[in-house]
Amino acid sequence: MTTYEKNFTTEEYQRRIDKTRAAMSVKGLDAIVVCDPSNMSWLSGYDGWSFYVFQAVILTHEGDPIWWGRAMDALGARRTVFMDDDDKIRGYDDTYVQNPEKHPMTDMAQLLAELGLEKARIGVEMDNYYYSATAHVVLNQALPKASLADCTGLVNWQRAVKSEREIEYMQRAARIVEKMHEHIVEIAEPGMRKNDLIAEIYATGIRGADGYWGDYPAIVPMAPSGLDATAPHLTWDDRPLEIGEATFFEIAGAHRRYQCPQSRTLFLGEVPTKYLEATKAVLDAIEAGLEQARPGNRAEDIANAFNATLNKAGFEKDSRCGYAIGISYPPDWGERTISFRRGDMTVLEPGMTFHFMPALWLDDGGLEITEPIFITDTGHECFCTTERKLWVKS
Amino acid sequence: MTTYEKNFTTEEYQRRIDKTRAAMSVKGLDAIVVCDPSNMSWLSGYDGWSFYVFQAVILTHEGDPIWWGRAMDALGARRTVFMDDDDKIRGYDDTYVQNPEKHPMTDMAQLLAELGLEKARIGVEMDNYYYSATAHVVLNQALPKASLADCTGLVNWQRAVKSEREIEYMQRAARIVEKMHEHIVEIAEPGMRKNDLIAEIYATGIRGADGYWGDYPAIVPMAPSGLDATAPHLTWDDRPLEIGEATFFEIAGAHRRYQCPQSRTLFLGEVPTKYLEATKAVLDAIEAGLEQARPGNRAEDIANAFNATLNKAGFEKDSRCGYAIGISYPPDWGERTISFRRGDMTVLEPGMTFHFMPALWLDDGGLEITEPIFITDTGHECFCTTERKLWVKS
Repeated sequence: MTTYEKNFTTEEYQRRIDKTRAAMSVKGLDAIVVCDPSNMSWLSGYDGWSFYVFQAVILTHEGDPIWWGRAMDALGARRTVFMDDDDKIRGYDDTYVQNPEKHPMTDMAQLLAELGLEKARIGVEMDNYYYSATAHVVLNQALPKASLADCTGLVNWQRAVKSEREIEYMQRAARIVEKMHEHIVEIAEPGMRKNDLIAEIYATGIRGADGYWGDYPAIVPMAPSGLDATAPHLTWDDRPLEIGEATFFEIAGAHRRYQCPQSRTLFLGEVPTKYLEATKAVLDAIEAGLEQARPGNRAEDIANAFNATLNKAGFEKDSRCGYAIGISYPPDWGERTISFRRGDMTVLEPGMTFHFMPALWLDDGGLEITEPIFITDTGHECFCTTERKLWVKS
Repeated sequence: MTTYEKNFTTEEYQRRIDKTRAAMSVKGLDAIVVCDPSNMSWLSGYDGWSFYVFQAVILTHEGDPIWWGRAMDALGARRTVFMDDDDKIRGYDDTYVQNPEKHPMTDMAQLLAELGLEKARIGVEMDNYYYSATAHVVLNQALPKASLADCTGLVNWQRAVKSEREIEYMQRAARIVEKMHEHIVEIAEPGMRKNDLIAEIYATGIRGADGYWGDYPAIVPMAPSGLDATAPHLTWDDRPLEIGEATFFEIAGAHRRYQCPQSRTLFLGEVPTKYLEATKAVLDAIEAGLEQARPGNRAEDIANAFNATLNKAGFEKDSRCGYAIGISYPPDWGERTISFRRGDMTVLEPGMTFHFMPALWLDDGGLEITEPIFITDTGHECFCTTERKLWVKS
């Protein structure tokens, strides 16, 4: 039995913790209780599909973080976190699980008190999927002398600039998504059931590429056709691919929970003029946006350049055209920090990673041609080499 | 272009709404704001991977429900909900998306006021993944004259007894998970990389069975081996299957979002005596539990019978051994209502559906042999015909 290979060195986790503590100090926080599984993993290494029950990583200003969760998941924590000390892994009794009579946050409150934090100022991620309104009420009631403060996004922002190792994992994920797209163009044909195509996409992604195994994407593959593709987030059924329809493929390669999303669109049959025009407009606008993707520029510069070029060609997009990416768990592969849109004044730094996602949803179909990128010392690099064009098969 | 086939008739949605309204009346609620995607889908038909942004179904005591979400997802709502009236679909501006400056719940508050609910008693799902602590604070502040009450689980409980059509979808999902298990036994062999096996499991599930397409499971396939299998929720990597190790497969077939989970365990090589003993104990205990699975009995009766038989054989399980299942979205395929455990006094009724999940996690490996079941008029039926035993390949 080989031991579980940790994804990062203890030194890397320590650097992350140091950055996070500095951000905690700025906010005057004695401790944070982190329930976002991406943040938990980034701080501790914890990796498991157990986020449907309450769990957290507690970080104070001293010592290693503490993993807290359902008792049966403590063993998974033991096998994945970087902390050696068993005292840093705390499990709660199974009777707390999905039981209206007993909320796990009462157990969390006891643990925080045991750590001497009953009067502390404690950050909680109030606007996160995995910290509910009830969790907040229960924790507040159980720790009446503590002061709970919102720290939504505090850890997410520390994740924005990636380490070399993180970039490497995303590059491996990039090889995987390239291969997924290649395979789609190869096998998609009129009459093929959509779910059969999705099965192939999944299998290709999980087999991996270049010898690197594929992890699960934080969002399932999306591949709507025709009018369904006017809506961005419909998943598949068994309707066959048809001549005269565009299908967009919004998919991600994943490796060790790092996500590399990329979209392409496939048209079966003869492409209508409007589609060709839209494609040209998007490709030109992508070029204009990418020119702005360099250190020192702002996130909105990319959006503004993209939109200006797109509008000149007579097309409009009223949603953001990109967001930060990295490590992620369902339901989202974005980091929920930086967006490419007017008003986002975040200054781009080397090591930041984004999904530049200039999708267009037209009246009669969708068009998605997107690029995962990272900011370099002097500009940017696209993670993928997938040919940037509308694919056509007739 | 075929139109999108609705999963249920309008009459069925109406019956669900009637049941839900009765439960609202008992709690004195004028309206509910339902953010759980499973509840949203069950009440309205909405289906899309858009639950990483705020969205809801609003139900009052009159008229059709209202779908509310991100503007770009209104098109997906139009294509999936049963409500014909466009006024029943309300989208909010993209600038509300993942923007710390603007919370979507302020838009929700405006809509509730427009509906005449600014002084109403409104139920919200306070302990749900998709209604955050911040959402609750913002909604409270934006509707100072309204009274927000917790309605966590209110809709989930209405889902407990399934309609014929729902059972039919779960039976289709059962055919799919049977096929997934068959395929695993066929192809698993020493040296096979775990991710390659997972790729096959995914592809088989999504291709479907008996002509029915496979939807995505609400939890990814779990298939840990050896010591990793002592922890229930670790996902895969690329380590090869090894002789002398057990691997459990906790997987689900899915059809039109209805989930049919089932687990089996595969041992490669000669099975140690302890494993054989544990298997026999679990199989006997399953029989004892199933004997209690009939209308009029209580949920705890199944757990108590299971545990008594298991303990007699010298094994212990300190977590619940089953839970309600049905329609579901990530991160959980359970309904978060009924659990098979001591103290759950829910009376079993015909049409209730469960994952009887008597998994054992031993010191040196895991053992999962589980059965999805439904309660009939006189007893129960297992959804699947998968042979109930420990699989061994040598």
